[in-house]
Formats: sequence, C-alpha cells, structure tokens
Amino acid sequence: MKEFSIIDHFFKQRSYQRKDVLIGIGDDCAVGKVAKGQNIAITTDTLVKGVHYPHDTSARAIAHKAVAVNLSDLAAMGAEPAWISLSLAMPESDPAWLEEFSLGLQEISEYYSIQLIGGDTVQGPLTVTITAQGFIPEGQALTRSDAKPGDALYVTGTIGDAGLGLDVVQNKLRIPVQFHETICDRLNYPTPRVLVGTMLRRVASACIDISDGLLADLQHILDASSCGALINIDKLPLSQAMLESVDAEASLNYGLTAGDDYELLFCVPEDKIANMERALLNANTAFTCIGQMTGQAGKLEMQFNKQPFVFSGKGFEHFSG
Amino acid sequence: MKEFSIIDHFFKQRSYQRKDVLIGIGDDCAVGKVAKGQNIAITTDTLVKGVHYPHDTSARAIAHKAVAVNLSDLAAMGAEPAWISLSLAMPESDPAWLEEFSLGLQEISEYYSIQLIGGDTVQGPLTVTITAQGFIPEGQALTRSDAKPGDALYVTGTIGDAGLGLDVVQNKLRIPVQFHETICDRLNYPTPRVLVGTMLRRVASACIDISDGLLADLQHILDASSCGALINIDKLPLSQAMLESVDAEASLNYGLTAGDDYELLFCVPEDKIANMERALLNANTAFTCIGQMTGQAGKLEMQFNKQPFVFSGKGFEHFSG
Repeated sequence: MKEFSIIDHFFKQRSYQRKDVLIGIGDDCAVGKVAKGQNIAITTDTLVKGVHYPHDTSARAIAHKAVAVNLSDLAAMGAEPAWISLSLAMPESDPAWLEEFSLGLQEISEYYSIQLIGGDTVQGPLTVTITAQGFIPEGQALTRSDAKPGDALYVTGTIGDAGLGLDVVQNKLRIPVQFHETICDRLNYPTPRVLVGTMLRRVASACIDISDGLLADLQHILDASSCGALINIDKLPLSQAMLESVDAEASLNYGLTAGDDYELLFCVPEDKIANMERALLNANTAFTCIGQMTGQAGKLEMQFNKQPFVFSGKGFEHFSG
Repeated sequence: MKEFSIIDHFFKQRSYQRKDVLIGIGDDCAVGKVAKGQNIAITTDTLVKGVHYPHDTSARAIAHKAVAVNLSDLAAMGAEPAWISLSLAMPESDPAWLEEFSLGLQEISEYYSIQLIGGDTVQGPLTVTITAQGFIPEGQALTRSDAKPGDALYVTGTIGDAGLGLDVVQNKLRIPVQFHETICDRLNYPTPRVLVGTMLRRVASACIDISDGLLADLQHILDASSCGALINIDKLPLSQAMLESVDAEASLNYGLTAGDDYELLFCVPEDKIANMERALLNANTAFTCIGQMTGQAGKLEMQFNKQPFVFSGKGFEHFSG
C-alpha cells in the first residue's frame, strides 16, 4: 500500500474532528486556530521498539502509549490537549498492524477529544513519534521552577506499577494472577492525568510527570526551582497489586525509581492545599502528600517513619553509562 | 553522555531565541504565543538513514535537510516559520556527530530565525523527525485545492538537480567536476522557498512543494482541485549543470520525476500573474511558467514544442510496489 493510501485509509478517515482545526491531514501542513487568550504548549516524544516498550507489545498499546506519554507532558504543563501529529517509521507496510495501531490511535483521540492533524509514514525501523499541542490560558503554564521551601509535595495515583509490569512481561518476575492484567495495563495503557493538570493551574507551584522515576523527576524540580525536598518514604502510594506481589524493599525500589507511570508530581503552597485537595477529591483522583520542599538547593532527603533513610538505587536514564 | 546533558549541551544552549517562545527547552512542554490574527501551520517530516539520504551524508547536512524539508512544507502553505521540535533517535551517543549535527541545526535556525523549542533524544536506529510550526494570517493559507482551469502553472528555481545529485553520490553516474559541488549541495542542502511562500498568499490559487517529483506532486494539486493540467515539457527549468551532465531524455526524467528539490509548484489566476511576477523578480527568485490548468479533472497532459508528449516514468513513492 502506498504512503498516501496509508494516511488516507488508516488515519485521515478515522481522525476525530475539532472545530479549531481549519485544515487537517492532506495538505502540506495542518492549519489550526488558537483561541484568544490562550498560549500553545508543544511536546514531542518518541517510542522505539525494544527500548520504550517490549518487542511483543500490541500495536493498539503502542498507539495508546505514544499518545498518552505526550498528553502526560501536556498535563504536567497544565495544558488541555488539542492536536497531535504522527511520524511512523515501519520496516514494511503491514495492513493488519496498521489497522490495530490506527484503532488504538482513534480510541485515545476520541477519549481526549484530540485531532490527528498530520502524519508522515516512512520506511525504517519501527519508531513512533508524536508531537502534541495543547492550550493553556495565558500565563498559567505549570513549570518546574516555582517550587518554594515549605510547599507540600504531592503525587497522583500509585507509583512503580509500570516498572513492575515491565518485569512481569519480560518474565523476570511472577506476580499473583489476579493482578496480572491491572499491572500490565499500567505499563501498556498509561493514563495521562489530563484533568488534574488543568486543575492544578494557579494552584501548584511546580509540576512534572513521572516518566523516568520519582527520584529522577523530582530532581528536575529541585534543579529548576533551586529547592531541596524531604520525602516520607512510608507515605509513598503503592498499589495493592505491588504490595501483594513483591517484598517491601522491592516495592520501594519500584516506587522510587521505576519510570513510565505518568503520574503527576507537584508542589503546592500551604495556603492552596485545602482548595487543591477539595478539587481533586471532587474529580475522584487519588493523590498523596509524600513530603515537602526544603531550602537546601538540590538536596533530596528521605525519611522512613521519621528516621533518616538512605536509598542507593537510581532512576532510569537514557544513554546512561 | 546522558540525555539531559545532550539536550542541554548540544541543543538548548545553541538555540536561536524568539520573543514568542515563552518557555523553551527544559520543561515538560514548550509554551508559545500566537499573535492575534494569525493561524498556526504545523508539519512533521522524518528522515531515515539510507531511505531519505545516503548512508555517508554528513551530520551537518542531515540537520539542514531535516529542517529544510519541514520549512518547505510551511512555505508551500504560505506560512512564516517560527518553531521546531526535534526527535532524534541514535544507536549510541556520539559527541562528534552530535556536535556537527547541532551546528547544522543552529545554522539553519539562525538563517530563518526559528527556535528549537523542544527535543527528545532516544536510543534507536538513526532517525530524525522535525515538527515545525509557522504562522499565516487568518484565512490566507495556500492550499492545494483552489486551482481553476485557465490558471497558469509555475515552478520556482530548477528541477531534477537533487535526483541527479543522489545518483552522483551513489556513484551511479559521473558528471563534469565543475558541477559536482552545486549538484551535491542541491541534494544535501535544499533551500526551502520560505520568502516566496509568503509572497504567494492571496496570489496563488494552489501551491505544493516538490518533494516527490513534479508529476507526483502536481497530481496532488489535480486531485485536490479537481482540475487537469497541461505541461509544456520544453519549458521545464533545467539547470546548466543538468543540461551539461546528462542527455535530454535523462534530464527530462530527472525534471519530471526526481524528488527532493523542494521548489514550489503553484497555480496563479490570470489577473494576478503580473503582480506575482513583479514580486518574485524583486525578490530575485527564479520562476518559470510551465503550463496551465485545464478542466479535465485529474488529467495530466504534456506537450513538447506544442506536440503531444508521452512520458512513461513515474514519481517517487514510499512503500511502492
């Protein structure tokens, strides 16, 4: 099948339609309209087979994850997602794979009301790059750089599950059968915290999504905000599946260092905590205070039941070593 | 070298700075401001080693070309380029290659006053994806779909040179030594027709850039505009280098079917021709009228010295066969 037919058949016809897209797939560029008073947030993420997902991951999951990781970046910025572009490199045109991939893309696009506005399909090793655009009211972007000593440190959902899921699908570990699906879904079908991101505008002083692991991503906030942080390890939100599958040390290791959870990690000044908690409860989102920001720039301290806690592991890094 | 260091060292510090970028590289997303009365044009193109450029292409040329092909899409839409995002997959972190690549990116960014606003570097087979954003005054996008029978058909510059260059660097062909550099530069350092694109707003009825070959790209205009076209083959603008390097038949073949020239192909209603020609002359841009649009939807006719001309070749297609 030729490139133009691929884009038309699998992507254009299935694309969710938004009114702010003036020209969608099919011309040299897409053209969109940004509403008055809105800034545009832009992010790009690439998934490579065998690096960002296991070799046997389904095309539907790859499509979901490729979009979800970008929506998670938008959420961490407080942006409402709007448009995505796809670059898809494939060794060969495989209609069955494309069918499943494009349905996965359609599912998540419809769920979040985002439109696929452009695409490039090329021949090459399987690589999926999504660029996503979203909107933020002027001046309300959630950066990493405004955390202050004394701010409370929060995380949404539970952490470490995707890392546990990766070890499960790679047969490094067996877990009770009743948790298998939940844990693998956490790896393959991450949930970007889109609604929470928009609710944290003008509330959170700093925000990031956990893609590389709690410690690694918190370090970005510390560096950007010139703050330190104290984490209460005993407060880390670990799932029932995690706690019943591995021992305490392993669960902390997953919770502190495993990537790919796409939960939000954010700081809230004391006077905004009550409003924030009320809003997130109303939105039915789980969240946990895991510590607070301190004045020692770059310094990360940990406590377990109020005793100092030393952790020797480290977060995930591309090109490490 | 670690991912964050790569982005910071090679890309962030060398990035051209624009005032409409509120947040650049270094947070979860970039955030930009679209001026009142402007629409935003978005395009994505991926270059794969060995598919879109020969294996021994320099990192500087790869960077130039990856950006240029996207700016060419913006130009074909009439958009003024503004921001680019980079996704770079590399088998391993190679500082010498990155140094050259990032300098190439810096050169073209400064030339066109565009800012690199975000990047993702991942481990994987060498693949470069650029997403570019540009601005167009509301309602002035140059589509492919408004050509009318009787409109004159124009092309900028000369065509076929990049295809000739590809055969030269792949040692399929030898050309006179004095043309070698020019022809290889046409392949490796294509010039996106950015200024011309903006000048054609409200003048051209349809516009496309020649990436897949004149015939293939013209066909997109015919399909989108439900028109036909008559090309005067004897009018095709072929370079001196082309004419002195290969015979007449080969030169026509390159001119009609070779991709990668990134010249603009556009249609102009009769009452706008004089203004258009004056503007492009003032801008010191070569352009040639190669035919006109006709009423037979989808039909492409050719003449050579006013005699019917039949051509059997075809344009470049990804996933052909």
